[in-house]
Amino acid sequence: MDLITNIKQMQDLAMKLKGEGKTIGLVPTMGYLHEGHLSLAVRARQENGIVVMSNFVNPLQFGPQEDFATYPRDLDRDNKLAEGAGVDYVFAPSGEEMYPEGYSTYVEVKGGATEKMCGRSRPGHFLGVTTVVLKLFLITQPSRVYFGQKDAQQAIVIRKMVTDLNLPLEIVTCPIVRERDGLALSSRNTYLSPEERRNALALPHALAAGRQLIQQGERNPVRVREEILRVLESSPGIRVDYVEVVDGRTLEEQPVLQGPVLLAAAVFVGKTRLIDNIDLEVVPCTAVC
Amino acid sequence: MDLITNIKQMQDLAMKLKGEGKTIGLVPTMGYLHEGHLSLAVRARQENGIVVMSNFVNPLQFGPQEDFATYPRDLDRDNKLAEGAGVDYVFAPSGEEMYPEGYSTYVEVKGGATEKMCGRSRPGHFLGVTTVVLKLFLITQPSRVYFGQKDAQQAIVIRKMVTDLNLPLEIVTCPIVRERDGLALSSRNTYLSPEERRNALALPHALAAGRQLIQQGERNPVRVREEILRVLESSPGIRVDYVEVVDGRTLEEQPVLQGPVLLAAAVFVGKTRLIDNIDLEVVPCTAVC
Repeated sequence: MDLITNIKQMQDLAMKLKGEGKTIGLVPTMGYLHEGHLSLAVRARQENGIVVMSNFVNPLQFGPQEDFATYPRDLDRDNKLAEGAGVDYVFAPSGEEMYPEGYSTYVEVKGGATEKMCGRSRPGHFLGVTTVVLKLFLITQPSRVYFGQKDAQQAIVIRKMVTDLNLPLEIVTCPIVRERDGLALSSRNTYLSPEERRNALALPHALAAGRQLIQQGERNPVRVREEILRVLESSPGIRVDYVEVVDGRTLEEQPVLQGPVLLAAAVFVGKTRLIDNIDLEVVPCTAVC
Repeated sequence: MDLITNIKQMQDLAMKLKGEGKTIGLVPTMGYLHEGHLSLAVRARQENGIVVMSNFVNPLQFGPQEDFATYPRDLDRDNKLAEGAGVDYVFAPSGEEMYPEGYSTYVEVKGGATEKMCGRSRPGHFLGVTTVVLKLFLITQPSRVYFGQKDAQQAIVIRKMVTDLNLPLEIVTCPIVRERDGLALSSRNTYLSPEERRNALALPHALAAGRQLIQQGERNPVRVREEILRVLESSPGIRVDYVEVVDGRTLEEQPVLQGPVLLAAAVFVGKTRLIDNIDLEVVPCTAVC
């Protein structure tokens, strides 16, 4: 496995590989890899001739009060894990390499999915995501790009950008990987104290309670949301940022749950903000349920 | 020469041609071709295996009070001219093909060159330009893209986008083509009545007067600008939009003219807005001048 930090070197290599007829699978990450990231690399390995993993903590997608400075980093460990997962090239540029002085071009998906959920809680976040992701696409020239379903909204926003800009690549979304007790893997889990780690379980539990209601026949999104909120608000050490029960493709509200549905929540556990979601396909409820 | 109106067809073809090792030269136009456009195609023909010309009147770069609806169009004539200039493929999508319902992704170069000159007179214009141009780049996959120096500011903004987003292509700027009497070629010249056509000559004359001052040793941009303004304001039927004497690479003001300098102006002749410019390399003035 090779580590590349220079944009031109990465791009020249990607163009050369494509010229040789190879397909490139890209796994964009902010590093501090966990099994969730590695599941993306394994999938990319199965589907592409070449696997590139980017490792870049993108300052542009962090708000001024957020955790850019403290976001966990361990490039040596990441590189070993990436190699083990079959990655051919890790692209890990510096901030200065990606955004040199005078940098001023931004890509924005306006309205729709970007204004809800994390877009409301984190103004400018998705502008930073779409801008860096477009740059990574142009630098690494992938045929397929792999994102985790944990960042469901991110995947929806990026799909919209890819469609609108006619990017010649496919976005592949892979399932959330969880700890044995149900907590979704996240690099930010390292922020949690032992007590916070226990409290954080309320997040997957609350979402599971919402799913259970739907499985029992509830089709009113307001009641499902209330149930998720109820579980979260009755749990110690949890402050709710948002809870949404929405269309899983558009994040629009549904009057009656049907088709792809996303139960999504963001909470603060202490100072740590965690997100999680469950996506499911809801069939119309017959008289039986 | 083939005419293509479908994005996927154009993109699949471009990817296939690139896969065969061919280089693609793109000439983006809004149609109603004149010798200026054709000079770009001829240059592209010399430098690339395949020449694609796009022909699309981009609604996104017109303001609500501007001439999108009346902008001259003649695709049949354009296609014959393009074929004569050696174009292999004309890509002429519909507005609906480029911006389907729900389209919401925009690319913006912020600050700097986009806020001056035409950016100030035409809010949103360069957002529309960069968005459509990025889409055209991604659809036609060029190695080189050809723009006219008449739209000097446009070329500067697009170069900035290309650099910032790491687009793997080269922007080539070609000289302004003029009528024998000096008027820069523009599809909008067709709007002019015979009297307006005569009045419009004040634009190249005024810029030439500015250049002459510099050639005579003037290095104060304020005085050069005043001379250009003086000629325009003493000419019949001319309303000045802007006159700028600025750095030819950044459009920033220079305290003393030196290096690449752009003399640029926009005027209304009747209801028709025309732009023109002269770029020159200014050497430091010694005691001799």
